[in-house]
Amino acid sequence: MDVKIYKDLMGENAKWAAETRATLAGKRARMINLIGSPGCGKTLLLEKSAERLRPATRFAVLEGDVETTRDAERLASLGVRVSQLLTGGACHLEAKLVHAALNDLPLDALDLVVVENVGNLVCPAEFDIGEHAKVAVLSVTEGEDKPLKYPLLFREAGALVLTKTDLLPHLTFDLEACLGFVRRINPALPVFQVSALRGTGMDAWVGWMRRGG
Amino acid sequence: MDVKIYKDLMGENAKWAAETRATLAGKRARMINLIGSPGCGKTLLLEKSAERLRPATRFAVLEGDVETTRDAERLASLGVRVSQLLTGGACHLEAKLVHAALNDLPLDALDLVVVENVGNLVCPAEFDIGEHAKVAVLSVTEGEDKPLKYPLLFREAGALVLTKTDLLPHLTFDLEACLGFVRRINPALPVFQVSALRGTGMDAWVGWMRRGG
Repeated sequence: MDVKIYKDLMGENAKWAAETRATLAGKRARMINLIGSPGCGKTLLLEKSAERLRPATRFAVLEGDVETTRDAERLASLGVRVSQLLTGGACHLEAKLVHAALNDLPLDALDLVVVENVGNLVCPAEFDIGEHAKVAVLSVTEGEDKPLKYPLLFREAGALVLTKTDLLPHLTFDLEACLGFVRRINPALPVFQVSALRGTGMDAWVGWMRRGG
Repeated sequence: MDVKIYKDLMGENAKWAAETRATLAGKRARMINLIGSPGCGKTLLLEKSAERLRPATRFAVLEGDVETTRDAERLASLGVRVSQLLTGGACHLEAKLVHAALNDLPLDALDLVVVENVGNLVCPAEFDIGEHAKVAVLSVTEGEDKPLKYPLLFREAGALVLTKTDLLPHLTFDLEACLGFVRRINPALPVFQVSALRGTGMDAWVGWMRRGG
């Protein structure tokens, strides 16, 4: 890892986040930033959200990954407007890359831009990309104590989506304990319990998406 | 995040990793470094491994977390010798902190030191802590494509533990595809399919632990 470059990017990040905020200030479009562990179900959540957002809400996805274009291809195959942002090894999206991709979007024809960040519960929460709201995505398979163990994201988030609730009968996950831990970190955080696979809870979550945080 | 401090630590990391290697060179004890996403089952794997390692294999755990001492308490309650390493926000363990904790262990009375890194599939793979082997821990709930999407860890690892296999009947996880992706990244990587909860596959994995990588 080239530390000098990393330092430069850190210094520039706030500047590019501010540029993005300035760009969005004159537009109708809202931008939300989905953050969660690898495999917590962010892409499936977007696939199933897309079905419900269309056609009333015009949206685009900026898909962040360390490598591969697999997630962008999944969304593109559903007809979703999607751009792939590859970090080339880095563990989070930086504001400059997001800004460049945002500027290539037809913002005047959009209501919502959804950023799917790199799968990582820690680092992306530290990097402002100029979004209106961060969304924490936590799978019930990850255990109820994650809000206590990784508090920054849950503190910074404007919403929490608790995914894969269809698996609850097969897990020892303590839902009430989890919600208690969430309230301890961020008492006002709205929590959406969803099974994207089954469709449970999706209407409430997609309602929040439409409002854009 | 204070970039100057981060830069200093990066520069020092290789030095402290080398110090740890020098410390371990004269000892019987091997050191392995468990890396995987939040909630992939690292701590439960250690709890259930501990039952099988004792009494023949004398071991200690260095438990890495961003915040809280929850995981160390879980292991301590089973009588496991465990030290808690808190990063105070950082997304990975650095070699200096590991070295300090290692020096407080009675190394001459140990066969194995297990480091449980911070829950993160990306960053910990970049930081050498002087271990004999990295172990990738991937839960089947995370989906079969993670070796392709986060290849560094799978390339660096000396073993892969595929956890929560008891949930396979309830998932769309494609095991053969996952193993194919693993082989594409690291053809010789030994893969242990386990359900720590049910005990399935634990003997083979604990055999590998005893050999220390």
